[in-house]
Amino acid sequence: MEKKRVYIAGLGLIGASLALGIKRDHPEVEILGYNRSPESRQIALERGMVDRVTDDFVTFAPLADVIILAVPIKQTIAFLEMLAGLELKEDVIITDAGSTKSEIVAAAENYLQNKPVRFVGAHPMAGSHKTGARAADVNLFENAYYIFTPSNLTKVGTIAEMEELLSGLHARFIQVDAAEHDRVTSQISHFPHILASSLMEQAGAYSQNHELTQSFAAGGFRDMTRIAESEPGMWTSILLTNPEAILERIEDFKERLDQVAADIEAGNEDAIWQFFDQGRQIRKSMEIHKRAGVDSFYDIFINVPDEEDAILGVLERLRGTSIVNIRINEENREDINGILQITFKNREDLEKSAKIIREQTNYQVFLD
Amino acid sequence: MEKKRVYIAGLGLIGASLALGIKRDHPEVEILGYNRSPESRQIALERGMVDRVTDDFVTFAPLADVIILAVPIKQTIAFLEMLAGLELKEDVIITDAGSTKSEIVAAAENYLQNKPVRFVGAHPMAGSHKTGARAADVNLFENAYYIFTPSNLTKVGTIAEMEELLSGLHARFIQVDAAEHDRVTSQISHFPHILASSLMEQAGAYSQNHELTQSFAAGGFRDMTRIAESEPGMWTSILLTNPEAILERIEDFKERLDQVAADIEAGNEDAIWQFFDQGRQIRKSMEIHKRAGVDSFYDIFINVPDEEDAILGVLERLRGTSIVNIRINEENREDINGILQITFKNREDLEKSAKIIREQTNYQVFLD
Repeated sequence: MEKKRVYIAGLGLIGASLALGIKRDHPEVEILGYNRSPESRQIALERGMVDRVTDDFVTFAPLADVIILAVPIKQTIAFLEMLAGLELKEDVIITDAGSTKSEIVAAAENYLQNKPVRFVGAHPMAGSHKTGARAADVNLFENAYYIFTPSNLTKVGTIAEMEELLSGLHARFIQVDAAEHDRVTSQISHFPHILASSLMEQAGAYSQNHELTQSFAAGGFRDMTRIAESEPGMWTSILLTNPEAILERIEDFKERLDQVAADIEAGNEDAIWQFFDQGRQIRKSMEIHKRAGVDSFYDIFINVPDEEDAILGVLERLRGTSIVNIRINEENREDINGILQITFKNREDLEKSAKIIREQTNYQVFLD
Repeated sequence: MEKKRVYIAGLGLIGASLALGIKRDHPEVEILGYNRSPESRQIALERGMVDRVTDDFVTFAPLADVIILAVPIKQTIAFLEMLAGLELKEDVIITDAGSTKSEIVAAAENYLQNKPVRFVGAHPMAGSHKTGARAADVNLFENAYYIFTPSNLTKVGTIAEMEELLSGLHARFIQVDAAEHDRVTSQISHFPHILASSLMEQAGAYSQNHELTQSFAAGGFRDMTRIAESEPGMWTSILLTNPEAILERIEDFKERLDQVAADIEAGNEDAIWQFFDQGRQIRKSMEIHKRAGVDSFYDIFINVPDEEDAILGVLERLRGTSIVNIRINEENREDINGILQITFKNREDLEKSAKIIREQTNYQVFLD
């Protein structure tokens, strides 16, 4: 039997990491790669992520059993149109990695209908602050949701075949309707990006006449505007390909702001208290406090002095204990200071660690 | 000469930490404490934060050279009214620690006008996720802004006297007009709290009909809603005592949302790109990237494996190097994974550390 051939178009962070993940469980698969610019193409080839590369998208398409489009949304749609005009292998699986799904699935249904191909939209929910094949990571998708959005071009067995091919990613595969994917991500990702950028621009404009705005911006504001530093091009495409759900979230949010404004104007203490209390209750009850593969957070807070090697001293005392996360905590603090927060996998590790730190240091220790 | 007496009303986190800070540089000062509930009163007394305590606010007021009101905003205003009816020491300094300043300063000017007392509003900009005297910390205000809002009750020398008394806090003292304080904090703190709670409630409501909202909420959403878990009572008081500035920010923000919505509806790619790019540029240029006492961030990103003691191994190699912050970085990642981010004080430490990690491990290392 011929070797299975997978063609990955786009050897950026996502495409190159997918290549590594496929190779991990399926070293026998031949991976063909396309990238427009030479740099990532060369890195992917040199590091053995791919077996052959091209800068001409159509070249390898007819050779592939699976075609993964890991390029920006517009490019994905353009490539789907190009694929419709090519002589592809019968029953080839075509899939993608775009952040919005409805427009891509609609484009596939439009261009590929009645062709002897299969298509399934996909969104691997991971990213990094770094880009390009250079930043590729076989563990990028570990425990991440890998969302498939089946459509009428997704024949029975297509998704199972993809999950088998991608088993080395150690991702959490899930199937969601494309429109529902776009609605849910509008709420938890697309609209929050608009909020963050709007808040950043508002504060920027305000600081023109209120210069202390810059100096006093601290903890909470920093956290809320962090994602405003994301890459503009990607987020522009996301807004343009998910307008309906996002516009609906904007309108809904404006009504919420109107309600708060009315309560402030009326001096309605009860209503404002309820508003803040409800937000707190909802957040506490949400899965946001849980993590992939970990039931919940088990956090210790240690008031470490601002001295060299203080953190090292703590970790030495906890040697052999699994640490899920570690950070200097600025939570609810309006300026810097050193509460060391360590997250453990379970309550047992948490309590054991608290006991050790309390016995062996004079640092203040809080459990959550 | 008689010992100086400072009366701190409210022995919560702020009041008790102020007591510790005063004692650090001025062990000779006698500190009197008021707290309604017995627990913090007892802790403050037992730990020597205060010399004497009362549960009756008026008892100690006539004995004090300085009265610091470290209670909620409403209580602060009520205490100012009570102080107006008491026989206080001549030229006593009365100050507070409220998060909004205009209403408190107005109340002081109203109640204390023509009395032989001095008043200066103050806002020490620090807090913690823990509360009560139990969590008191002599370093709570280190490098934090300690804002004085002078008024016509602030005689010459009043602020200098307070700064001298509070020298042990190691805070950054600054003077700002009360109204301007409230405007700036409405932008960087009060209004962002409304955004966070509104987003949280919106997502909560959405998850009723879109259950994956809970599962997919990740990195960016978590950061943006973190402050929604703040204490509702305090934030209710803040909104009620700073309505004008906050309402103005809400209206301004709605106009920004309208503009984005119009650009989305028009499919105006350039305008949306500009919107995201501008947010990014402003954030990059803002002081948000700097920290108290540190010129800028010097960050290293190390791709550590998810293994026991991997972080310990890194810190052992960097022994003796000052670490400003450390965290497992989830930035721009939609699910967990382990980029260890370490912040150093200067470029020299950063480059030395990068060299060590590159030479002694096979971990991927990125500099910012």
